[in-house]
Amino acid sequence: MEADAVASADLEMIVHGPHGRNKPETRLWLRMLSTTKLITTEIRRRLRSEFSATLPQFDLMAQLYREKDGLRLGELSKRTMVTNGNVTGLVERLETDGFVQRVTPDGDRRVTVAKLTPAGTDLFIAMAAAHEGWLRDIMADVDEAMISSLWLEIGAVKASASNHLSGSAFE
Amino acid sequence: MEADAVASADLEMIVHGPHGRNKPETRLWLRMLSTTKLITTEIRRRLRSEFSATLPQFDLMAQLYREKDGLRLGELSKRTMVTNGNVTGLVERLETDGFVQRVTPDGDRRVTVAKLTPAGTDLFIAMAAAHEGWLRDIMADVDEAMISSLWLEIGAVKASASNHLSGSAFE
Repeated sequence: MEADAVASADLEMIVHGPHGRNKPETRLWLRMLSTTKLITTEIRRRLRSEFSATLPQFDLMAQLYREKDGLRLGELSKRTMVTNGNVTGLVERLETDGFVQRVTPDGDRRVTVAKLTPAGTDLFIAMAAAHEGWLRDIMADVDEAMISSLWLEIGAVKASASNHLSGSAFE
Repeated sequence: MEADAVASADLEMIVHGPHGRNKPETRLWLRMLSTTKLITTEIRRRLRSEFSATLPQFDLMAQLYREKDGLRLGELSKRTMVTNGNVTGLVERLETDGFVQRVTPDGDRRVTVAKLTPAGTDLFIAMAAAHEGWLRDIMADVDEAMISSLWLEIGAVKASASNHLSGSAFE
């Protein structure tokens, strides 16, 4: 975790250009990246200390919480950005702990889906509430109006990025 | 790469709270995260297609470019957020390609540092210039004033996050 924090702090200091100054877009990007890394590191630390949980576990449970009927492991893997092999390991671990179960839905015996158990649902609700509180804490010095305007402006960056992706849908 | 894009697009849709609505700070955080992932995915794609390079290679070369006298592998590992083992593999690969060399500085035969070769320096300068252009392209629809105000406002989020970290320096 400390290595993460050091690297995040450093990241903005990198001057990519040969001329010793970054262009405004690059400067903004390095700041977005270092801020995201700083907050991600903090969330990992709090998940670990308050719930003995990891970020991939939390993300996986968030996906299962959304899908009350459960998700196949391949689908879970796509949505959580962890590889198939890792999803299997994560699900097995959560199953051992009683938070996830694998079931065969009626009518299709070839399919297995993972879903939260009642204990898993309770745990996720507690984690999500804590997560919300951590973010309020992390952004405590930023006033409400700025949080709203940032949300809109980052939306503009996201829309611009979506409009200028180089790859086709088939890439 | 496609899995990344799907997951990024999805990420903002996750409702963490049990009550079906996210608080403003959570909403902002999910948007920051999904935007950062979208742009990171795009940069990975362009590095691969235009330079047959990976993001960890680019990050490692950026660190070496900053330190003309070279860096020890342990230091490189800290600054690039890849583990020691991976840094060794990355450096060996870049050495084979002629972009990095390992040298023993005068006066201390126990120490080995990695540094860019002249070819590595040329390559990094070309990559950094391209990277700058990609970001201009990605943010093409965002006007200059918004890029400046976003830089300031994300700076406020970063400062707030730094002020509210839970861990001590020794954690």
